Amino acid sequence: MDPWSSETGDYSKVFSEFGVKKYSSGDIGHRFFRRKIVVGERDFHLILEKIKAGKKFVNVTGVTPSGRNHLGHYGIMEMFKFFKDKGGKNYFAVADIEAFSTKQKFSKIEELKEMTLNNLANYFAMGLEKKDVYLQSDYQSRYYSFGYEIGRRITENMFKSVYGSMDSGKFSSALLQFADILHPQLSEFEGKMPSITCISLDQDPHARLSRDMAVRLPYDFYTPSFLYIKHLGGLRQGKKMSSSEPETGIFLDDSDLEIEKKIAKAVTGGKQSLEEQKREGGEPEICKVFELLTWFEEKDKEVERIRNDCKKGKWLCGECKKHCSDVIKKLVGGHRKRIPSARKKAEKFLS
Amino acid sequence: MDPWSSETGDYSKVFSEFGVKKYSSGDIGHRFFRRKIVVGERDFHLILEKIKAGKKFVNVTGVTPSGRNHLGHYGIMEMFKFFKDKGGKNYFAVADIEAFSTKQKFSKIEELKEMTLNNLANYFAMGLEKKDVYLQSDYQSRYYSFGYEIGRRITENMFKSVYGSMDSGKFSSALLQFADILHPQLSEFEGKMPSITCISLDQDPHARLSRDMAVRLPYDFYTPSFLYIKHLGGLRQGKKMSSSEPETGIFLDDSDLEIEKKIAKAVTGGKQSLEEQKREGGEPEICKVFELLTWFEEKDKEVERIRNDCKKGKWLCGECKKHCSDVIKKLVGGHRKRIPSARKKAEKFLS
Repeated sequence: MDPWSSETGDYSKVFSEFGVKKYSSGDIGHRFFRRKIVVGERDFHLILEKIKAGKKFVNVTGVTPSGRNHLGHYGIMEMFKFFKDKGGKNYFAVADIEAFSTKQKFSKIEELKEMTLNNLANYFAMGLEKKDVYLQSDYQSRYYSFGYEIGRRITENMFKSVYGSMDSGKFSSALLQFADILHPQLSEFEGKMPSITCISLDQDPHARLSRDMAVRLPYDFYTPSFLYIKHLGGLRQGKKMSSSEPETGIFLDDSDLEIEKKIAKAVTGGKQSLEEQKREGGEPEICKVFELLTWFEEKDKEVERIRNDCKKGKWLCGECKKHCSDVIKKLVGGHRKRIPSARKKAEKFLS
Repeated sequence: MDPWSSETGDYSKVFSEFGVKKYSSGDIGHRFFRRKIVVGERDFHLILEKIKAGKKFVNVTGVTPSGRNHLGHYGIMEMFKFFKDKGGKNYFAVADIEAFSTKQKFSKIEELKEMTLNNLANYFAMGLEKKDVYLQSDYQSRYYSFGYEIGRRITENMFKSVYGSMDSGKFSSALLQFADILHPQLSEFEGKMPSITCISLDQDPHARLSRDMAVRLPYDFYTPSFLYIKHLGGLRQGKKMSSSEPETGIFLDDSDLEIEKKIAKAVTGGKQSLEEQKREGGEPEICKVFELLTWFEEKDKEVERIRNDCKKGKWLCGECKKHCSDVIKKLVGGHRKRIPSARKKAEKFLS
């Protein structure tokens, strides 16, 4: 499993061998739970208990700045916002050093600044506040010194057994993720507290090693909890939605026309001919348009109707793409409206 | 060559193979130059030019906190103070993260705090000011992010070819040294400027790789200059003066009685019998007591007199040890008097 790859893969091993549990706590108030986009968890009961008791827990996530944010990022952000609204103590890492460490095209961290600004504007537009967010490259010294405390406990063998290979970029990147996830439990921050981080299954190596570290470090930490959400597939087969491959995804700054065009070209579960589809029905399970609807169509009933009608051949790709375009244009359009003031906030944050 | 070892070694290779030049610029105002304690240099002419022109240069050194500071540290400190007085822009790194990264006995950086306090008191007692000093674990975020910029450019092979092997502790430690030496030339600090760092010959691997980095990084840096000073030998044969072996060294918090006792037991260049020594003379070249005098006796003439009289058998070990004790007791005694107020300054600095 390579958390740095942009290919999708077979993640059955994380359940069968690495101890991720199938998610089974039902809906706690977000469509991602109802639609089985949340697929797995580690120690999620710790967080559920805190939420039920109205007690504090750490809500921590990191996103590496990328040229443009796509709907996959939007999903991760929604989950972060969800746990913020549930009362979490928020630590949203803008992982600029991590991005720098793994992407060779940048020669100075400074070069990520425009990117970071764009991304921050998106986060603020989605309801995060300045106090919820930190920039890895401009954070408190305790965070960095803690990173060295973690680093000293990672051996080359330990690293290679989890990640397959070790180089200084991967090492830095992993180290920062462990520091991001664990530092809120230091006494200088919140102190010992359960924490929740939403990741995709391919990020599980980071989760495993950060849980390992929580136990090895000379601090009294809760082992961090994780929720696993599916990857939002790209619009073509076999790819994640990825910033480095713009044609595979829908971006938060796409125009309405771009959205329409991309969805029009998306891989569907439709048949070769209209007649065949009307007769045999479509396959929503493999349809990229239906996947988008599963993620972003607000109404559960509408999702079910579409699934059923598609299978029966009563709801065809043309009208489905049109409907999906409307859903996504509404979402992206609402976001677009909130950007100008969010961008000002982001500029102030970075200056 | 292992810069993390406490054994002394053969450093002829750093001259013949690795490009350190014999120091040949004469005395510029400190006995270490006159007494050939300064033995080598890299690009020292850059610093000489700045000093002569009354222009700015960076004065940068790092010392890892250790239980107690000994006279070897005192020598390094004296050189730093010397370049401060020559007009340097001062960056004295209290290398607590580095100490943590290489010493397994500490499990948290916090555990080094008492040690750091003691050492800082010594630095302040020697004439450094708060603005000259920074703590690695509590510094500006730009220093840390710069460390990641360096780290990404170090390959495993590059590291192994210089240091022989790579582990996360050594890697962290080396990275911090490069950041210490190079960060003052960033625009956020002094900007491009020649820099001088005094090190011992066994630290040359760090110097080489930091010079290599200065060229590889996407910044307009001067290649940093270095002065190489001899190790102050321990009081026994073949050892550096080392904090981890208290019987080998004289410490800045030793009492007068301890100083007398340690010098009385030191290895000398004396002969088996008094008669033999009077007849054949002693060997100041191999004498630990004479070495101490070479470092710390203020009067050049007195050092020469002792060397000559010793060789002629006219100045014997007993009177020499007595004289050396007086010199060191005066130095340590003066330092001791300045400690109480320096310690207060250090406490304030760390709080």
